[in-house]
Amino acid sequence: MNENIPAKHGVGVVGATGYTGLEVLRVLHAHAGADVRFATSEASAGGASGLPGLDLVSAEDVALDSVELVFLCLPHGKAVEWADRARGAGVKVVDLTADHRPGSGREQGWVYGMTDLAARAVAGADLVANPGCYPTGVQLSLHPLQAGGMVRKDAAVVVNAASGVTGAGRTPKRELLFAEVASDYRAYSTGNAHRHLLEMRAGLPGLPLLFQPHLLPLARGILETIYVPVAPGVDAAAVRDAWRSAYAGAATLHVTDAIPTLAETVGTDRLVLGASDNAGIPDLVTVMVSFDNLGKGAAGQAVHNMNLMLGLDPTLGLRC
Amino acid sequence: MNENIPAKHGVGVVGATGYTGLEVLRVLHAHAGADVRFATSEASAGGASGLPGLDLVSAEDVALDSVELVFLCLPHGKAVEWADRARGAGVKVVDLTADHRPGSGREQGWVYGMTDLAARAVAGADLVANPGCYPTGVQLSLHPLQAGGMVRKDAAVVVNAASGVTGAGRTPKRELLFAEVASDYRAYSTGNAHRHLLEMRAGLPGLPLLFQPHLLPLARGILETIYVPVAPGVDAAAVRDAWRSAYAGAATLHVTDAIPTLAETVGTDRLVLGASDNAGIPDLVTVMVSFDNLGKGAAGQAVHNMNLMLGLDPTLGLRC
Amino acid sequence: MNENIPAKHGVGVVGATGYTGLEVLRVLHAHAGADVRFATSEASAGGASGLPGLDLVSAEDVALDSVELVFLCLPHGKAVEWADRARGAGVKVVDLTADHRPGSGREQGWVYGMTDLAARAVAGADLVANPGCYPTGVQLSLHPLQAGGMVRKDAAVVVNAASGVTGAGRTPKRELLFAEVASDYRAYSTGNAHRHLLEMRAGLPGLPLLFQPHLLPLARGILETIYVPVAPGVDAAAVRDAWRSAYAGAATLHVTDAIPTLAETVGTDRLVLGASDNAGIPDLVTVMVSFDNLGKGAAGQAVHNMNLMLGLDPTLGLRC
Amino acid sequence: MNENIPAKHGVGVVGATGYTGLEVLRVLHAHAGADVRFATSEASAGGASGLPGLDLVSAEDVALDSVELVFLCLPHGKAVEWADRARGAGVKVVDLTADHRPGSGREQGWVYGMTDLAARAVAGADLVANPGCYPTGVQLSLHPLQAGGMVRKDAAVVVNAASGVTGAGRTPKRELLFAEVASDYRAYSTGNAHRHLLEMRAGLPGLPLLFQPHLLPLARGILETIYVPVAPGVDAAAVRDAWRSAYAGAATLHVTDAIPTLAETVGTDRLVLGASDNAGIPDLVTVMVSFDNLGKGAAGQAVHNMNLMLGLDPTLGLRC
Repeated sequence: MNENIPAKHGVGVVGATGYTGLEVLRVLHAHAGADVRFATSEASAGGASGLPGLDLVSAEDVALDSVELVFLCLPHGKAVEWADRARGAGVKVVDLTADHRPGSGREQGWVYGMTDLAARAVAGADLVANPGCYPTGVQLSLHPLQAGGMVRKDAAVVVNAASGVTGAGRTPKRELLFAEVASDYRAYSTGNAHRHLLEMRAGLPGLPLLFQPHLLPLARGILETIYVPVAPGVDAAAVRDAWRSAYAGAATLHVTDAIPTLAETVGTDRLVLGASDNAGIPDLVTVMVSFDNLGKGAAGQAVHNMNLMLGLDPTLGLRC
Repeated sequence: MNENIPAKHGVGVVGATGYTGLEVLRVLHAHAGADVRFATSEASAGGASGLPGLDLVSAEDVALDSVELVFLCLPHGKAVEWADRARGAGVKVVDLTADHRPGSGREQGWVYGMTDLAARAVAGADLVANPGCYPTGVQLSLHPLQAGGMVRKDAAVVVNAASGVTGAGRTPKRELLFAEVASDYRAYSTGNAHRHLLEMRAGLPGLPLLFQPHLLPLARGILETIYVPVAPGVDAAAVRDAWRSAYAGAATLHVTDAIPTLAETVGTDRLVLGASDNAGIPDLVTVMVSFDNLGKGAAGQAVHNMNLMLGLDPTLGLRC
Repeated sequence: MNENIPAKHGVGVVGATGYTGLEVLRVLHAHAGADVRFATSEASAGGASGLPGLDLVSAEDVALDSVELVFLCLPHGKAVEWADRARGAGVKVVDLTADHRPGSGREQGWVYGMTDLAARAVAGADLVANPGCYPTGVQLSLHPLQAGGMVRKDAAVVVNAASGVTGAGRTPKRELLFAEVASDYRAYSTGNAHRHLLEMRAGLPGLPLLFQPHLLPLARGILETIYVPVAPGVDAAAVRDAWRSAYAGAATLHVTDAIPTLAETVGTDRLVLGASDNAGIPDLVTVMVSFDNLGKGAAGQAVHNMNLMLGLDPTLGLRC
Repeated sequence: MNENIPAKHGVGVVGATGYTGLEVLRVLHAHAGADVRFATSEASAGGASGLPGLDLVSAEDVALDSVELVFLCLPHGKAVEWADRARGAGVKVVDLTADHRPGSGREQGWVYGMTDLAARAVAGADLVANPGCYPTGVQLSLHPLQAGGMVRKDAAVVVNAASGVTGAGRTPKRELLFAEVASDYRAYSTGNAHRHLLEMRAGLPGLPLLFQPHLLPLARGILETIYVPVAPGVDAAAVRDAWRSAYAGAATLHVTDAIPTLAETVGTDRLVLGASDNAGIPDLVTVMVSFDNLGKGAAGQAVHNMNLMLGLDPTLGLRC
């Protein structure tokens, strides 16, 4: 340390004992530009936060004037009150809940923080709604294709998704017990009625989506296998070209000629995109998207947004 | 034991140290109508077979006149010679390799043993080609729907499949090591070119299939999530009705109103079928098929076929 | 089925939705001598039991006169009332809770059902306290050695145990969630104060025991590695001889010259015993005991006891 | 980047496709003081190393004058020749194989790099033999206790160890396949004859050790549960005091009053030490040591040594 090192920006983490809050703390732990001033938990106040020297505190004991920005890592529905409190104190907010995302009915005044599609807006925002995990993969893969007129709208885009169990939160439930999950794999939220669909559709207007998630016997990671009805002449190579062109400067987005794997993104803030043609079925291109639901799908994107909001190097501290 | 108990039928297992051979032994261990007279292994001859009192023997030391039927559990390509040898000795054959399946070019004279669709033919056969694991789920779920005119042919049937690693065999390869598989999930055989496609298509003539398998971090089990383009008016309830009607007497096939899980079929010879409508996408019904790749997908169906070929109770010894 | 087949004995399972109750149902499902007449659950009454045609019922709706024997698979502390009710109705009881085991203070009138050490007493009993999982491995391995004067008492017998998570029950708790357990392994109940110690000591009077359990990232299975201070001249071969002599007719107990593995006992009612000398440390022999905590450690031993109490073939229905 | 940033030290990784080599690359990827100039692989030369812009090269194509230090991550037995080559070129060596460790017969001229016990010697060394994984935990936990006269020598110190499978290397073997390991747990190297024993004993002269390793169904992590015969009056609190005193400035060593878990060290370069008394057995204290076999047990300690040898901040780049 010497006097030339600029002071770090103070930030706070509200709801620091769920999987999302823990991962935000983990990313910030090694961050050269931000310093966690408080981490809250109502149930575990007084306990250890996981960061050296930082104990958990109750919300009512938080000094908001010690920070420039707060991350809200609360259960869905619980962020509204906190967002108001932070706003009133002139503190910026990155809300990792669904409470202010498109389709929530409360999105007014909030920038939707799909960072790689909205960097400029995020940089100027005080209030950012951090995207859901599944929508992150669906939108980042499909947006450039839709923008380029490469997707037909006369057939459904079928998103077959699979996620590790941390996506379901840390509240104890029988179906999340080790012995229930460890030898299982299954679809859930059947019927095309997952709560993330409104958010996905808002980013991909007019595209008919069929979204079917599955639960993997893994703690972390999302792989979305997407069957895309393509316009005549569009093939996997054209899809990869569209991504490479759209994401030329995006350090966390990687386009591969190989098959994306979960192993290469778990524990990182990366998102890997791949595509394949299908022999005999020329009108469908298979798109594969791999990322960590807690990394790029939550904490990684949240810190990416923070970096922009605080004027820091955009990918500072990220595991690219 | 008393004299009223009929003598068991003698059978042999050729290739008894791979995952398929081991599972055939496991099912036969508790079988009331069949008795394993030999189990072969070239690499481990002289070692234990896993069955009490039965050591592994080399192929050349086998006495074929001690058995009525042999199971061929060899690597693909290695069954042709053994099938000829057995046929020459008047011994029935259930071949679990791909060597005599539809599309192999050697299917003449062989009955394709998709038991629940071909029980009569199997009962009269001496030579049965046991189906592949993926085709078992695809055909058993789609055949009644195609037969009932419920599937449109103007769009691809998208089969998104996921399998445990025993499906890839027991030969040591880096990509099958524990530390490679344990935190991973990925697509493989992209491009709609899996070697099982010919077999699937033979059982579902004229249906355009897109088959995309994935590797699960599990030892056993297959779940196929199939997006079926249905004829107008066909919904999930109609799909379930078609299955229940087609499989009324089929003890190993279960139709559920719930969502099938891997957990309910792993370690059994069951296959569970489920279906779901999709809000906003009325022309696609989602079909889910769960079974154990080593159970119904291999050894279970093989013993089912044996039971029919030997005139035994069809589901004797099966874990229904 | 024909008229020569004797009627099955009616039995009931009290508490049929925990891991132990589910496993008792699984073993009884294929049992040729017992027929489950009821399975209770207060929380899930009316739901499916897992056995075909048998719905769960509330305790108050149970007709005790339909059965000869009940299995109590309740949380510890809840079996006393049910045991009294069954006794009053002249129904035999196998209690899988700790409520009537040695050290409980309520063992009077109950036979401790460590089957392989107490077959005669069990056969004549109406009330059997089924052993705990950890004590099953500790006593079955050490009892013949202590009886043969092979264990020194001037040093502690160190039992380093490891168990899958079903041993901790099915009640949702954070520390049992998949994402908490899946990458972890740790000791628990440190301090030599595990609740099973009283039970272990009752079966091995005078032996100083240090019992240290660990939690494995597995659903099922117990492996106990026991460092036994042996009398001069006693080695691993002598230990195996003592077991083989003591358990000559015990179909579920296997003594191996190799190293026991969890894989060979999970999903079975077997218990495998192995022993090893230690170069340079002649006064300690390492004993290894493998079994399924839900099999031989609970349901398997319970059904074994039932078979004896009802005069059936002792290992009928067991996965030996 | 600006001109005030000092040039990084050039280093090379020899054998970069095994688990140890991959982890060294991972740690160096984010290292502020070292720059990987080459990474070798004979089998995969020309392929990707995992580091951006760095392809794997064959040993014969390596320019040793581009580096100050090489990490040898070869199979055991293969490091001798490379060490000579590096030495001849005036390049420092951190050898992660067993080839120059105590007990190898080739330790002359090499410093044994148990960093926290030998920082000064390492700082002045050109040739460092990086410790084995198991010995790291055994020596770091026991050395301060032995030095303090807290361990009796009249009884064996029993080390019950458990390790994830990456410790067994990345060469394909049947017993390391996912389907073999995933539901198993077992002892191996029974008989007190593990190849690490010589190395352990060299660091703990005169202490009788019984070392029994087990294989966990995990990719990474070691937990050693050690039953230590303590001198009269020594208890767990005294053990923790001894560690805290010995390791006051050691950033990667953590002493906990709680029970160490694998989860808190996997993916890090930390080592966590805990201790427990045992009711009724006052002469044995249980010591628990948790660390990542690829982190503190290999790559983490290797980079720690490199930092000292190159005059950098000792824990630069480590995940403390």
